[in-house]
Amino acid sequence: MTESRQPPAAGEPLRIALLGCGVVGSEVARLITGSADDLRARIGRPLELVGIGVRRTGIERPGIDPALFTTDTAALVARDDVDIVIELIGGIEPARSLITSAIDHGASVITANKALLAEDGASLFAAAEQAGVDLYFEAAVAGAIPIIRPLRESLVGDEITQVMGIVNGTTNFILDKMHSQGAGYADVLAEAQALGYAEADPTADVEGFDAAAKAAILAGLAFHSRVSGADVHREGITEVTRSDIASARDMGCVVKLLAICELSGDGADATINARVHPAMIPDSHPLASVGGAYNAVFVQSRSAGQLMFYGPGAGGSPTASAVLGDLVTVARNRVRETSGPGESSYARRPVRSIGEVVTRYHLSLEVDDRAGVLAAIANCFAEHDVSVQTLRQVTSPGDGAEARIVVVTHPAPDAALSACVTALSDLPAVHEVLSVMRVEGMTTP
Amino acid sequence: MTESRQPPAAGEPLRIALLGCGVVGSEVARLITGSADDLRARIGRPLELVGIGVRRTGIERPGIDPALFTTDTAALVARDDVDIVIELIGGIEPARSLITSAIDHGASVITANKALLAEDGASLFAAAEQAGVDLYFEAAVAGAIPIIRPLRESLVGDEITQVMGIVNGTTNFILDKMHSQGAGYADVLAEAQALGYAEADPTADVEGFDAAAKAAILAGLAFHSRVSGADVHREGITEVTRSDIASARDMGCVVKLLAICELSGDGADATINARVHPAMIPDSHPLASVGGAYNAVFVQSRSAGQLMFYGPGAGGSPTASAVLGDLVTVARNRVRETSGPGESSYARRPVRSIGEVVTRYHLSLEVDDRAGVLAAIANCFAEHDVSVQTLRQVTSPGDGAEARIVVVTHPAPDAALSACVTALSDLPAVHEVLSVMRVEGMTTP
Repeated sequence: MTESRQPPAAGEPLRIALLGCGVVGSEVARLITGSADDLRARIGRPLELVGIGVRRTGIERPGIDPALFTTDTAALVARDDVDIVIELIGGIEPARSLITSAIDHGASVITANKALLAEDGASLFAAAEQAGVDLYFEAAVAGAIPIIRPLRESLVGDEITQVMGIVNGTTNFILDKMHSQGAGYADVLAEAQALGYAEADPTADVEGFDAAAKAAILAGLAFHSRVSGADVHREGITEVTRSDIASARDMGCVVKLLAICELSGDGADATINARVHPAMIPDSHPLASVGGAYNAVFVQSRSAGQLMFYGPGAGGSPTASAVLGDLVTVARNRVRETSGPGESSYARRPVRSIGEVVTRYHLSLEVDDRAGVLAAIANCFAEHDVSVQTLRQVTSPGDGAEARIVVVTHPAPDAALSACVTALSDLPAVHEVLSVMRVEGMTTP
Repeated sequence: MTESRQPPAAGEPLRIALLGCGVVGSEVARLITGSADDLRARIGRPLELVGIGVRRTGIERPGIDPALFTTDTAALVARDDVDIVIELIGGIEPARSLITSAIDHGASVITANKALLAEDGASLFAAAEQAGVDLYFEAAVAGAIPIIRPLRESLVGDEITQVMGIVNGTTNFILDKMHSQGAGYADVLAEAQALGYAEADPTADVEGFDAAAKAAILAGLAFHSRVSGADVHREGITEVTRSDIASARDMGCVVKLLAICELSGDGADATINARVHPAMIPDSHPLASVGGAYNAVFVQSRSAGQLMFYGPGAGGSPTASAVLGDLVTVARNRVRETSGPGESSYARRPVRSIGEVVTRYHLSLEVDDRAGVLAAIANCFAEHDVSVQTLRQVTSPGDGAEARIVVVTHPAPDAALSACVTALSDLPAVHEVLSVMRVEGMTTP
């Protein structure tokens, strides 16, 4: 580690540059000014906001001095007198170049940019370590919920074996509504867009990209290894049907989009799997009642046992709270001429492919209502080495010619289950596979 | 801040002394040895456990080298080659003298000692700051739940307005059992003692001393002020009756022993109240379902909104996890020749007396079943300026000569409510005040 640049002389303010002035950025700017006395007392040095990089000046932003705005963000981060750069632009470029430039110019960086960290965290952390500056990112995952620091510091003496969370508010809102209103995905998405809970282009949320980036960050921290967004198996919620939701309700479950990071095996043989997909979880599971825009993250570790962290997952004020917490920490570090813990990725554990990942499944099938069908189905599971926990025939709503079979498997590898589903679809007695979904949280309290 | 002593040369181990080898201490000792490779990778330097201070040697402690044990704890903490002292003895003395000696000899300290921190934290933090060493204490509150770091660092840029938690597992176990079994306090306490959930002398738990010490620590951190155990209003659970529990159930509530820290007012006029007492909370409140030995802490802040932290509140492994997290953090700080954030108590806010604290109350009264009684009771509340939210007459189980009145007040100052209860008791129509208890969490989700 090289030493960071000398901080300003005692009494001199630490100088802050802010990139981005949307919902979160404008709240951060207001808090830096409005909470100046408290921040100074907590840091031991005043803060001075010296510039805000925006795409367009001339937009009225209440409570923020218009003289701070500049469109020349490259010049702003390259200023020699800037101590800390807060990046709230999002996306890969120009955020990556600006952060890199800030680090190269000796500034510490705070970012909420999960996509960039999941794609290119390793090189940014290496650059920060090299320059002796901080790169903090509490706001990148689960909004206001303190989850980065607990994983990176509080649980750093423990062995984390699982992180499972609801980390995307938009999809949680949509699934909630599908559950409570019995409505279809497309209708609820349109409602969410009208209410501003979903973007005009909802891809990043509904296809699970946002949650996958967060899963990559969480897995890397939890397992002291490098995990990128591309390592995360990703299924969104666009194919969740009313039938899935109804099936979940029938078994006392709800459907949630989960980000799951697991460590399997021990010591040098341990492997990671990281995945984002819809799953059924029992109504009694603590994550089942996490509604709307709230996020929650479950952490299981060898010594601590089960922990849960819960709170607002997005929004201007909550995300600004996380940014300000990092700001005070990073500023204190600069005053003390030190830096916080860097990346810890010594374990270099392999990431397993989804085909090897073992989970429990729920299947719902529409079949001929005649003797021998159950046996044929049971045989198909047996042939694919998928062990069945329960198999039950649900009263047919129709004319007696069709029945519905609901199957819950014991944990089975994804590849085996996929092959089994294909084979089931090919059985003459099976009219339709109505629903196939993973079941999680059956063994947690 | 003076600089801490130079750490050992690169590659040399950091030397650890452990004080106490009970349930938590022995687990810490085993983890330091058993997780040595991971800890070295995370810290960048190996750890070496050089001694364990115990009251008696010669006791078999599986997995721990007997050569480490010593009864000369004073000499152990005064060793010049000890970098970090972990204090798990508990109580005021000799813990205070040993910690002070360790700091004076240049060691950083990790402690789980809530009683000592609540009584004398200020002088210990001052000594650590003076010596340029760390004093970390994540294990002192809520076992494995990361709550100290979130308050001290994650939320340090925010304004916390309330911390409310279940932070004592013994009393939570007892109240749970009273609720589920309809049993009386004395019977359940005896059962808890037989099961090892309560100590032979249960005073520290059931009288709320343990929770009050934790409340003092939480309030100090949350409000950047000094709060000692003596500042915390304390009521235990020894006077919670079956009638209280039944009344709570009737209104869709459960009784929990809560530690509550609140900030009232703004800026320079803000005041603190910190209190531990049984309270009714609605079944729907997230804290209502926290059972047995689990702890949970709710945090409300201006920007972040409502956060909850949940997990095992005690036990050898969970508490050891918190200690090991501090150990890695403190060791990293020593390797980097720095120290973490010290005490932040600049705000020096006054602590309000309980008489001024405003809460909602539930009362249950046995009264004459005749005309005019309701009016007399309503008058009594009005005379004491206690506004009534609901007042209802419950069908009398008896012969018609008695009725039961249940009252829930709007938030009222404790002093006014106490005076009102005294006056109610003196009313000729009131036979008995069956239950008086605060009601919390009516306005949280």
